[in-house]
Formats: sequence, structure tokens, C-alpha cells
Amino acid sequence: MDHSILTHSVDQLADINTLSRLFDKDTRVFRMPSEHVLKEVIDITRDIIFPYHYGETPVYADTLKYYIGVRVDRLSRLLREQIAISLEYDEDYCSQCQQRADEITSQFIASLPSLRAILTTDVVAAYNGDPAAKSNGEIIACYPTVKVLTNYRVAHQLLLLGVPLIPRILTEMAHSETGIDIHPGATIGESFTIDHGTGVVIGETCVIGKNVKLYQGVTLGAKSFPLDENGNPIKGIPRHPILEDDVVVYSNATILGRITIGRGAVVGGNIWVTEDVPPGCSVVQGKSSRK
Amino acid sequence: MDHSILTHSVDQLADINTLSRLFDKDTRVFRMPSEHVLKEVIDITRDIIFPYHYGETPVYADTLKYYIGVRVDRLSRLLREQIAISLEYDEDYCSQCQQRADEITSQFIASLPSLRAILTTDVVAAYNGDPAAKSNGEIIACYPTVKVLTNYRVAHQLLLLGVPLIPRILTEMAHSETGIDIHPGATIGESFTIDHGTGVVIGETCVIGKNVKLYQGVTLGAKSFPLDENGNPIKGIPRHPILEDDVVVYSNATILGRITIGRGAVVGGNIWVTEDVPPGCSVVQGKSSRK
Amino acid sequence: MDHSILTHSVDQLADINTLSRLFDKDTRVFRMPSEHVLKEVIDITRDIIFPYHYGETPVYADTLKYYIGVRVDRLSRLLREQIAISLEYDEDYCSQCQQRADEITSQFIASLPSLRAILTTDVVAAYNGDPAAKSNGEIIACYPTVKVLTNYRVAHQLLLLGVPLIPRILTEMAHSETGIDIHPGATIGESFTIDHGTGVVIGETCVIGKNVKLYQGVTLGAKSFPLDENGNPIKGIPRHPILEDDVVVYSNATILGRITIGRGAVVGGNIWVTEDVPPGCSVVQGKSSRK
Amino acid sequence: MDHSILTHSVDQLADINTLSRLFDKDTRVFRMPSEHVLKEVIDITRDIIFPYHYGETPVYADTLKYYIGVRVDRLSRLLREQIAISLEYDEDYCSQCQQRADEITSQFIASLPSLRAILTTDVVAAYNGDPAAKSNGEIIACYPTVKVLTNYRVAHQLLLLGVPLIPRILTEMAHSETGIDIHPGATIGESFTIDHGTGVVIGETCVIGKNVKLYQGVTLGAKSFPLDENGNPIKGIPRHPILEDDVVVYSNATILGRITIGRGAVVGGNIWVTEDVPPGCSVVQGKSSRK
Amino acid sequence: MDHSILTHSVDQLADINTLSRLFDKDTRVFRMPSEHVLKEVIDITRDIIFPYHYGETPVYADTLKYYIGVRVDRLSRLLREQIAISLEYDEDYCSQCQQRADEITSQFIASLPSLRAILTTDVVAAYNGDPAAKSNGEIIACYPTVKVLTNYRVAHQLLLLGVPLIPRILTEMAHSETGIDIHPGATIGESFTIDHGTGVVIGETCVIGKNVKLYQGVTLGAKSFPLDENGNPIKGIPRHPILEDDVVVYSNATILGRITIGRGAVVGGNIWVTEDVPPGCSVVQGKSSRK
Amino acid sequence: MDHSILTHSVDQLADINTLSRLFDKDTRVFRMPSEHVLKEVIDITRDIIFPYHYGETPVYADTLKYYIGVRVDRLSRLLREQIAISLEYDEDYCSQCQQRADEITSQFIASLPSLRAILTTDVVAAYNGDPAAKSNGEIIACYPTVKVLTNYRVAHQLLLLGVPLIPRILTEMAHSETGIDIHPGATIGESFTIDHGTGVVIGETCVIGKNVKLYQGVTLGAKSFPLDENGNPIKGIPRHPILEDDVVVYSNATILGRITIGRGAVVGGNIWVTEDVPPGCSVVQGKSSRK
Repeated sequence: MDHSILTHSVDQLADINTLSRLFDKDTRVFRMPSEHVLKEVIDITRDIIFPYHYGETPVYADTLKYYIGVRVDRLSRLLREQIAISLEYDEDYCSQCQQRADEITSQFIASLPSLRAILTTDVVAAYNGDPAAKSNGEIIACYPTVKVLTNYRVAHQLLLLGVPLIPRILTEMAHSETGIDIHPGATIGESFTIDHGTGVVIGETCVIGKNVKLYQGVTLGAKSFPLDENGNPIKGIPRHPILEDDVVVYSNATILGRITIGRGAVVGGNIWVTEDVPPGCSVVQGKSSRK
Repeated sequence: MDHSILTHSVDQLADINTLSRLFDKDTRVFRMPSEHVLKEVIDITRDIIFPYHYGETPVYADTLKYYIGVRVDRLSRLLREQIAISLEYDEDYCSQCQQRADEITSQFIASLPSLRAILTTDVVAAYNGDPAAKSNGEIIACYPTVKVLTNYRVAHQLLLLGVPLIPRILTEMAHSETGIDIHPGATIGESFTIDHGTGVVIGETCVIGKNVKLYQGVTLGAKSFPLDENGNPIKGIPRHPILEDDVVVYSNATILGRITIGRGAVVGGNIWVTEDVPPGCSVVQGKSSRK
Repeated sequence: MDHSILTHSVDQLADINTLSRLFDKDTRVFRMPSEHVLKEVIDITRDIIFPYHYGETPVYADTLKYYIGVRVDRLSRLLREQIAISLEYDEDYCSQCQQRADEITSQFIASLPSLRAILTTDVVAAYNGDPAAKSNGEIIACYPTVKVLTNYRVAHQLLLLGVPLIPRILTEMAHSETGIDIHPGATIGESFTIDHGTGVVIGETCVIGKNVKLYQGVTLGAKSFPLDENGNPIKGIPRHPILEDDVVVYSNATILGRITIGRGAVVGGNIWVTEDVPPGCSVVQGKSSRK
Repeated sequence: MDHSILTHSVDQLADINTLSRLFDKDTRVFRMPSEHVLKEVIDITRDIIFPYHYGETPVYADTLKYYIGVRVDRLSRLLREQIAISLEYDEDYCSQCQQRADEITSQFIASLPSLRAILTTDVVAAYNGDPAAKSNGEIIACYPTVKVLTNYRVAHQLLLLGVPLIPRILTEMAHSETGIDIHPGATIGESFTIDHGTGVVIGETCVIGKNVKLYQGVTLGAKSFPLDENGNPIKGIPRHPILEDDVVVYSNATILGRITIGRGAVVGGNIWVTEDVPPGCSVVQGKSSRK
Repeated sequence: MDHSILTHSVDQLADINTLSRLFDKDTRVFRMPSEHVLKEVIDITRDIIFPYHYGETPVYADTLKYYIGVRVDRLSRLLREQIAISLEYDEDYCSQCQQRADEITSQFIASLPSLRAILTTDVVAAYNGDPAAKSNGEIIACYPTVKVLTNYRVAHQLLLLGVPLIPRILTEMAHSETGIDIHPGATIGESFTIDHGTGVVIGETCVIGKNVKLYQGVTLGAKSFPLDENGNPIKGIPRHPILEDDVVVYSNATILGRITIGRGAVVGGNIWVTEDVPPGCSVVQGKSSRK
Repeated sequence: MDHSILTHSVDQLADINTLSRLFDKDTRVFRMPSEHVLKEVIDITRDIIFPYHYGETPVYADTLKYYIGVRVDRLSRLLREQIAISLEYDEDYCSQCQQRADEITSQFIASLPSLRAILTTDVVAAYNGDPAAKSNGEIIACYPTVKVLTNYRVAHQLLLLGVPLIPRILTEMAHSETGIDIHPGATIGESFTIDHGTGVVIGETCVIGKNVKLYQGVTLGAKSFPLDENGNPIKGIPRHPILEDDVVVYSNATILGRITIGRGAVVGGNIWVTEDVPPGCSVVQGKSSRK
């Protein structure tokens, strides 16, 4: 191969000016959280929450504490470093990022028992709702709903603790794994379950109650979003639906805007909902024609 | 970091009582099949079925037997161990799990040639049905339909042989890889193909004939499922559609319940079907409005 | 385990006749491009295009050239070998495959700066279009639209340079990662973005202008394809939609056939479009009924 | 390459008769302990004995138990499997190998605290005896004497517990790492140290007291060994030296046969000793000539 | 860190002139055989020669051929590439290196059965000569003499076939592993064994008969070597000892120059021999003095 | 296995008191330099010094700077972290360890060109001195003298810059690899070479001139070392030999104490020297007796 082509291309690609449109806040991006490390963060967290279901090594009651201990210790190291990197990225070399990363990590570690508690309700809900499910073990081992909710609940907790960047990376990792796209900013109650799940989208400002069930392809999205004086979308405004307790939404339904689906309502498959649904109501689509 | 927070969190997480809701059948779960090993099982099986298409090493006719031999030998070891684990999980320390795992593995190994034969019909069907396809090699190398069908046909065979847990894990692995969710319990004839595929769901009790073709987003689901006296779904009842030979279902169609789509019928895209479609008929959706 | 079952199965599987239906063009397939190596090709290319966002090592302006240089050098070696393999597969042992692989690789390396330029417009479009996006860094780090477009733009460039097989493998890798299926043959202008994305299908002969935005589940497909005298689909005929500049297509819309969606048109969610839409028009679906 | 040469060579090499001289006890060797696994056994054991010195992760007093626990648990699994393999190899498919492997492993695990205690005396002896040593940490981190003695003391303990094959493999691993060849059958007291060490040989029936120090190149060997009626060496007869407490042997000295080097004796460098040395005596070599 | 120091150092180190004294034959060295690949070559060869003793997977008579076949096939690929690299290095871009590498590899593969045959005699000799040896399996699994002789006999065969560079790399790999330094040019008969071995040196032009045994620290070296008119040593002249059949040399003996140690002679430990020793004779050292 | 034995053993091993004799300076050891990382440090340094001889990837003059740049950048990161750890270990949590590690690393990086220069003289000396050497490439690729001298010269440089612990670890790594034990404190001039090398020991306070050559088994050691009032050896006193320029020492010679071997002197094999040897003299051993 002609090396002059290679070196010429390298010269162009190493010209920092060709990267300037990608820099945030007038600073040069030097370091981002590592997807590789965050993958390990999720793997370890799953092994902490469900210690008998993912780990390769058989663990017994007598040795459980050793394994939980080593995993939590490693999790705390990995997470602290990644949180510090994300804080520095977000704030341009803040002076106290290391200390804040330390505090946030401690708070996250302290919240692990409650994460296990709420994820346990999600597992039980999935088991009860699926006639094809044979055991809790099967649900935990392979159901996408458990995997995506573990990532989401971890990401949501980190978001509440003030961590930038990482929550979104974690939910996008689950999106890639399951086809289910839950924004870490959404609020989701206990005993939540998604059946099959591919194509589900749950937007940033959604509020979902307890015992809610979604099927594949459901969108909980924004209908439109207001623009500021420059024509750019205003960020952070509530714009996604509220689903109260015990709602069921069937496959490929699309629910858009800051509307409320009342307690116990049922939304049928393949339909488009942009207005409130009162508690206990069902909305369904019309018939298809046959020829 | 303050170690007392870490050790306190570990103490709570190592409390076996916080895990009790997750145990099946009043016993403690100590070991589950390994997703990591089952990933290798699938990789090896693909290399056995299509020995020229996935393996990194070029294989010639003279040396084909060496490679097939080593792969089948390794497959049999890995599979036997995983089957034994899944039998023990399912039956709480059965006395004859090792021997049954051995017998099942032998039967599975003996079925590999017929798995290649039926998967070959699927490859040919995908090639014939896609104007963008350039060669059989391209189909095998990257089409999601071949990948998901390999996992499904292996999983279905294991299910027929009485293996718990593993079949579902295998099809969920393909679900994550392709966005296509086929329950291992479904029955699917030869020359089956799925185009694009993301979002397809094929339920546990589906029966699909020969030469059937689905497009992306198609759901073959249950309309509802009967509950037992305790309000829990009754497991195992036929509740998904029957598709006879030569049926085509276009993208995002939803077919629900134990209905029959007759031989050669065509189901149009984006529609919702809950009643039988006679052989040779087409069902399509209404027009959209323009403003 | 009874070894005779194993060796009998191996004998059948090593019988070259059982593979003959899978061979292309009356020749035996001996070598295919390696998905494993192509995965590294994509990883390196992402690190070249966005050198500050995926690499594990912090890179500074002073050392940028070293890293770009090593990455481009490795990319050129890996790609040249894979291109040669794909040319040989496609043409049955052509005599000049090595030299052509060398030339194509040089041309691809020379195009890397322009690939960065157009992908930068895609990043900016994604940031401007999503109220939930916090920074360009976040977009690059985890948005599926950037990942799938990087694979697509690389694959499209290789297709234009005459490389068989590999372009399709690259876009299927992104399909698996993101749920978005873009055929490498499609033509797509700058500042293109896909929100959420799962289930999107963009067919081989699509032509998409500048500043186009799609939401999840959108299909740009073929309505039907003409058959040749043998009943097989005729390959390569224009059969997918044209989307002019500034078009927006909402979630789960299906646009089929060689129709044109005019400049600035808006296609509503969940609808089925098979006829031209004039510039500036909106098409939306009817209301759902509530009971 | 001509495949017929390859397949012909394979045919010859796969002829079981060409391996028959290598089989032990008229049976075919089917499985041996794995050097790969035993390497991990040694790495873990070193991390258990000296938990602050080899492990990559910083361990604190609060988390020490977690790390020790996981390491001991993994060590017990690996060792049990390897011991079972070695018993089966030695005894031709004994019926109780699994149970005996289990008992031996328990006994070995119970002996780990005493192994740490005696190895601590060896570390202190090395520190006190070397003017170039800066700290205990340096001794543990890199002195060959600590590495070879850890392997030897583990191997000797396993030998006492009745494990075949593995003890010798462990000491040969240290031989390769350090150039020091200690037979696991030798008996060695506390506070033993070897300086530099390359070329040291300590034979199977050596008995070494406390506070003994050797330098590089020292051989404690057999002078000759009696043959049985078939002219083969009789195995297991005491034939190597006894070194009493506080003996020092300088570099490249050779001490041969079942002789006794008395308490506190000093053996000079480069000499050949085949007779007893009384307590407190020194033996040295003659002068070299200069020309 | 100050990047200017780093970039300045890089500039100096990337100055090709600072490397010019290291180039051979007025050409720039661009590629050398890979120690990493050659390590795998040795591992595979050991697994081919002794298929039951090093491999992690249990192999049975029925499946032996599969494993031997895959190993020989892989060995032939790796070796051919490395041989081509070494020929090109040695001859500055020879035109027929690829073809010669192919021929040499075929010849080497054809010699593997005879390599197993002679190495079997070495194993048996080691077992018969060591009262501490318990089985052939133990000898093969861990005795340094088997490891170094496998590397030497492979290297010697490659040297005879005209391969540059690689033979010496292979024997230096064994030198590092065992402390035994055998030049690949030496000629060594069957049933050869080295006990303990650390420090043994066997020079390039040694000729060793059958049933010879050496102990640790033995040097078979050159006494001096004649210089050419420029004061450089003349390469390739016979300058190392000849040991006839049945010779034994005890530990740390040094035998120098082109002398002959006659059939059945015994050379005692720690002595210096520079003149012929007649057949059947013993040479021993004088006594040490005691004070 | 009975878990009570395991947990009891863990309890004892996690008792911090059983580790107290191993702590240095009354503090608890929490972190040591990583042998694993230092192995990579050495591998990278070898690839920087000899960029054409060890790297797997072919490097050309045009791309040399990219590879050197990335290697030096990575080396500086790894080394800085390890130096900081070693300073903290040595000084008990010093406040400025990070800054000092940074400065030392810069100085080391700046010295790399001179390290290449002096190691080049060592390569040339090895080539000129060995009639069996075929090329400089062969010398660099596999001669132990080059490997051990690279480690030694790096270690010595770090020692001069005030780095604790790491220099000794680096030379012990080479000791394990080559059997040659050079203390990093020794001073060694250019064009130094060691033939074969196994068993060579070069003590901490040795001073070696230019063009010196040693053979295997040579010891340059201390004769005795003075004790302080507590009976412990006084550290750091000059106690090893001085070898002036052009000295040759033959195999297994032992030179002890702070004596001087004068310029151009030759020390014969297997002898014991404890007094000065005047310049130009030869010392040889007496004859062996034959019987």
C-alpha cells in the first residue's frame, strides 16, 4: 500500500480543527466514561442483586457474604472512577469531583438493598403475568424485562444522585441488549413488567405507577415539544404520559403527550392515544377490512 | 470511601432472607445454566451446521472431518454439563440427572444432521425471497433470520428432548441478537423466513407450516388467557395462531388467539387480526387520511 | 457417552454432499470475511472518527497523531485482508484480488476525513433534535443513531468502491446492536437522524435527502417486486421510497414502494403510505375508538 | 500445501500403537492434572498466604475476609478437581477418588494458616540474611526464595496427604520460574532461605533443619542409588544429605549421599562433599593458581 | 506530565538513524518471526507428540484423530507463515520464500511421527534413570528434560530443513523455561536424558551418541575459537565435544573443545575436562580440604 | 465439602494479627507495585528500544513515529502509576508522591534514547563475541543477554532516579526469564555481554567497565558482610568486585569481595577468586585427575 495516502489521511484526521464542532461548552473533550467498564459495572450489579442466577460459580449460604463483599468492593471502585470522569466532563475540571464521586458512590452502595427489593417485585410480576414462564429462575436468567429494569433502576438511582452521562449510557446498553428504550429520567413504580419488549420506548418525563404492564412496541412519547426563541427544543419540560397503577398497554400502542392513563385502564394494541383515558376504561382500534 | 457503609450494605445483601421471594419451589437456587457457556454452545453449533461460513480457519474437504469432530466432541461435553445443571434446578437434586443428561445429549448429537437439513431449506427460502440478497453465503453470514432460526431449531429440539430452562435461554439470546422473539415451544415447518425481523414475536403454542414468510414487527400472540381459580394464568393451553403453508404476513401485523390463517393467505401490514382467515384470502388495512 | 453416536453423527456432518445446496455458483465456499475481524474494523473506525469519545486511553492534542496513525495503520491491514477474502469469494479465485483489495483500501483510507465530516453533521442533528440530549458527548457515547450511521456510512462507502459481502455484514452488525436495519445500498444525505430507532428498516434503493428525521419503527420498504421468467425476484430494481430534504416520519409509519415524500413533508405515526406525498404536506392516521 | 502429506501424517500420529510405550500400568492415559489450572492454584494460594503483596486490588482490614473467602472457596474447587484427576490417574479408575479428593482438599484448606506461619519465618530469614534487602515487602514481591518455598511447602503438604503427581508438577513449576529444584518429598524446617538460587537442587530424601541457608548452585544430591535384580534403581531409599539446624552452604557446593552436615557447620563454595561434616566445622576448597 | 518531554523523546526514538547499527546486511529489518506465535507452535507440537498428557480436554481413542487432525492443520498454517517470514528476513525479500516455506512445512509435518518415536525413547530413558520418578505420565507432564528435548528436536529438524532464525528462538524458549541451553545445531542420539538440568549448556557442534545422561550444570563448550583476519570468530567450525554412546556426565562438569569422551566413560562432577577421555574411563575431581 | 472447615480456615486467615510480622515499618501494607503491569512496562520498553524486533505488527519508516508515540505514551502512564505506588509504600503515604512520580517518569522518558544507544553496544558485542550468532536480529530476538540487560539498564536508571522496589522487581523478572541475576544497583559499562548466562549473579555494589564478557554460572558476589551491633548485616557497603574494561570471566568462576580484576584480565572457568587480579593476567584452575 502507498504509505503517502495513509500518512496524508492521518495528517487530516489528526487536525484538531476537524473535531471542533464535536466539543461541548467550548472545551476539548479529553475523557469520557468507558462503556467497557460500565458493562462490567452492570454485570457485577446483576450478580449482587441476584447472586444465585448469573454467577458462574455456585454460591452457598455460608459463602454468600464473601462473594457479595468482593463484588460490592469492586463495584464501588469502578463506579467511583467512572462517576469522577463523568463529573469532570460535565463541569470542566471541577475541583471537587473526586470527593463528590466518593460521596455519590457511597450513597449508591447504600441503596443496593432497596434496589434488590424493588427488582424482586418486578420479577414476581413477570412470573405472574406470563403463562409461558416456568419459574422465577427462568425469569431472572433470561427475560429481557428483568435485564432492562435492572439497568434502568440503577441508572435512575444514579440520576437522582446527580451523576451525568452514565445513566443514559446504562439504559442505552440495555436498549441494545433488549430493544427496550427506557430513559433514566422516567419514574416507574414497583411490580412493573414488559412482555417481549422489542421496540418499547419510555420517555424522559414519564410517570408510571405500580403493577403496570406493557407489551412489545409500545411508545410512551412526546407529542411535540415547545421551542425556545432560537427554535431549539426547550429541555426538561414534562411532555410524556402518566400511567397510573394497574394500567395495561397492549402491543404497538402509541401514547403521546402529557396525558394521564387512569388507574386500571387498558390501552389496546396498535392504536394511537393523545388524550387522557379515564380510570378503568379501555381504548381499542377499529376493525381491519378483509377482501 | 467510608468502609462502614460498604460493610453494612454487604451485610444486608448477604442476608439470605432478602432473597427468599426469588427461590423456586421452596428450595434455594444454587446453580443455573451459564449464559456464557450456552453462548459457546451456539457458536459451536453454528460452526457445525455451516462449517464454511463462520469459522475463522479455512477448512477444506480433506480436513472437514477433523474440525467437525472436535466441534461435536466439545459441544457434547458443554451441553451435557449444562443439561445436567438445568435438570437439577428443575427437579431439586434428582438422582439420575447425570445419566439423563447423557442420554439427552446423545440424542441431540444424533439430530444434528437433520438440523442442518432443515436449516438449509430456511437459507434457500431467504435467498429466493429477497431481491437484495446476493448469495447463500451472504445469507448465512449475516441475515438475522438464519441466526434466530438456528437458535430456535436447536432450542425446540432440546425442548422436545425434555430439557428445561436452556431452550428459553437460547431463544432469548437470539432475541437480544436479532430483535426476533420466537418461543422454543412453537412448531415451525421448513423453508421459513423472516425479513428484517426486528420486533417479531412468535408465541409458545404457534403452529407454522412450510414456506411461510414474515416481515418485521409481526406478532403471533395470545388474545387472552384463561385464569385458574386463584386468578393466575393457566399455563400450556393452545392460545396462539396456526399459520398454514405458504402464508405471508407483512410488517407490523398483529395476529392474536388460536385462529387459523389458511394456506396461501396474505396478511397485510400494520393490521390487527383476531379471527380466522380462509385459505388464499388477503386481509389489508384501510387507507390513511391526508390533510 | 456412547462414542459411536458421536462418530456416526460426525461422519454424516462431514459428508460434503450435505453441504452442496449451500455452495454459491457451483463452487465450494472455503473462506468468508470474519465477523470477528470486522467487529474490530468498526471499533477502530469509530475511534478514528471520534477519537475522544470511545477510546479507553485519554488522548491529548499533542499525542492525537500517534493514536490516529496507529489506528489507521491497523485498520488498513485488517480491511485489506477482509476485502481480498470477499473479492475472492465473490469471483471464485480471481487473479488480481490482492491488488484490487490494496487499491480499494487506499481509497477507503483517503475517504476517512470526509466520513468524519458527514458524521459530524449527523451528531449535531441528533443533538438539536432531542430535548433530552445534554451534550454532543452524550450523543456520540451512546445514541444508537450515531452507531448505526457510522456503520452505514462506512458500509456505503465500501459498496461504492466495489466491495462485496462486507457492507451488508457491517450494517447487520449495527442492526443487531441498535435494532435499526439500513441497507448499505441506500443513499442518505447529511444531518440525518433516527430517534430511538428500534424497528426502523431502510431498503436498498432508498434515496434520502438532507435534514431528514425518522422515529422508531419506521419502514421505508418495497411494496412488491417484479419476478423474472422463473418466478424469482429481479434484483437491483429501484423499489424503495425517495425522501426529499427536511422530511420527518413519525414512529411506526410504513412507507412502501418507489414513491416520493416531498421536501418538508411530515408523515404521522402508525400509518401506511403507498403513494406520493407532496412537499410540505402532512399525512396522519384516523382516530381510535374508545369504549 | 499438499493435503495428502498432512492427512497421511495425521493417520500415523492417530495410530494408538505409536503411543503404547508411553502408557503407564498397561492402561491408556486419558487425563492428567492441568498445568494451566495448577498455575491458578499457585497464584491463588500466594494471594491467600500474602494477601497484601500480590493481589492487584488493594485490600483493607475491613474487606480482607471477603477476599480471603472467595479465594479459599475457589482454591478448594480447583484443587478438589485436580486431586481427583491425579488419584484416578494413579489408581486406574478407583471407585472412591471423588470422596478422597474431597477429604484431602478439606485437610489442605485446614492447613493454610500453618503454611502462612512457616512461610512467614522464611520471609523474615531472607530479610535478615540479605544486606541488599530493603523491606519484607520487597522480599515477598520478588525474591525467588519465597516463590519456590511457597510452591514447595504447598507441594510437600499435598504429598503428605497422599496426592500423587501434583506435588511434583508444582515444584517443577517453581523450578522453571526460579531455577531452584526442590523435590516435594524433601523435609525442610522453618526459617529456610536460598540466596539467588539458580541451579540449586534439593533431592527427594533430604532432611533440612531450622535456620539453614543455601546459596546459588548448591546441590544436595544422591551419590549413587542401589539397583534391583533387574538393574533398575530401587525407588524411595534415603539417599540425600541431612543438614542440621543453622547450616550454611555457599555457592555451587555439591553435597552428595546420605551424609550429615552437623549443626552450625559451614560448607564453602564450589566444593564437593561426600562425607559427614561434624557440627560447627567449616569445609572450604583449595586455592586456585594464578599464572 | 509535560508533553513536550514526551514528544521530544518520541522524535528522537523515531529517528531511523538511531536504529541503523541494528540492521542486518545493509537492509532495514521490517519483520521478524513472532515469539508469541512460536510459543503456540511449541504448545501444539507437544499436544501432537503427547496427545494425552498436556491437552486440557480428555481425548479418547475414537476421537484422537479429530484432535490430531485439527492440531496438525493449525500447526502447518502457523509454521508456514513463520518460516516464510524467517526466510525473507534472512534473504532480503527472496522471490520464492512462500513456496519454499510451503515445501519445508510439508517436510516437517511428514517428520512428526519420527519425532514422536525418538522423544518416546527420551521419556523412557528419563523414567529408567530416576529413582524419584513414579510414572511415564509424571515424566512427560513436568520433567524439564522432556520439554527441552521436544523444543530441541523440533528446532534441529527445522535447522536441517534450512529454516533460519526460528530454530534458535525455539531452543532459547526452552532455555528460559528449563535453564537448559541446547544449540539447535547439536546432534543428539536417542534415549538422551538430563537430570534437573539447570545450567546445562550444549554447544552448536556437539555430537552426542545414544543413551547419554547429563546432570545439572554440565557445560559442553568450546575451548577457544579461531579468529579470521579481521579478528572476528570464524563461524561454523567444529569446536565442541563428541560424547559417544552410554556416557554419563555428573553435575557441573565442564567439557571444552573438540575432544571425544569415549563410549561408556563417566565424567565426575565439578571438574574441567579439555582432553579426550578413553572409552570406559572415569574422571573425577580431587578431594576438598576440611578445617 | 464441609463448609465449616472452609469458613473456619477463612476466619483464621483473615485475622490481621497473623500478618503482622510481614508489615514493614509498623504500618500495614495496603498496596504494592503490580508484577502484571510491570511485565507490560518491560514489554513496551523492549518494543520502544528495538521497534522492529519484538512487535507483532510490521512497522515501516513512515509509520514508526506513530507506534513509538503510542508506546511511549502508554509507558509513561503505566510507569507513573507504579512509581507512585512504590513511593507511597516506601514512605508511608507521603504527600507529594504523585508529583514526584510525575517528575521521575518524565526523566525516565527523556532517558530512553540513551538507553537505546547503550543497549545497541551490548547487541553488537554479543554478535561479535559469538561464532554461533548469525545476525543482529537473531541476537535481539532471542539472546538472554539482551533481555536481561534491557531489564537491568531500565531498572538501574529508575534506581538512580530514586524509585524504590520496582528496580528489583524488574531484575528479578529477568532473573526468572534468563537465569541471570543482576542487582539493579550494579554499575555496568557499555558493550557488556553474557554468554548462555544461566546461574550468573552480579551483586549490588559491583562496578563493571566496558567490553566485559561473562560466561554462564559466574558469580560476582560478596565474601562476607559486616554486622551492626545487633548482629544484622549493614546495608549498602561496597562488598562486590570491580571488573575493569575488557575483562573476560569463564563459566562458573566465583569472584568474591571488594577486589579488582584489572583491565584485560582473564578469569578461568570453575575457579574461586577472592584477591585482586592485576591487569592483563589470567587465573586458571588446576588439572583434574583421571583414574
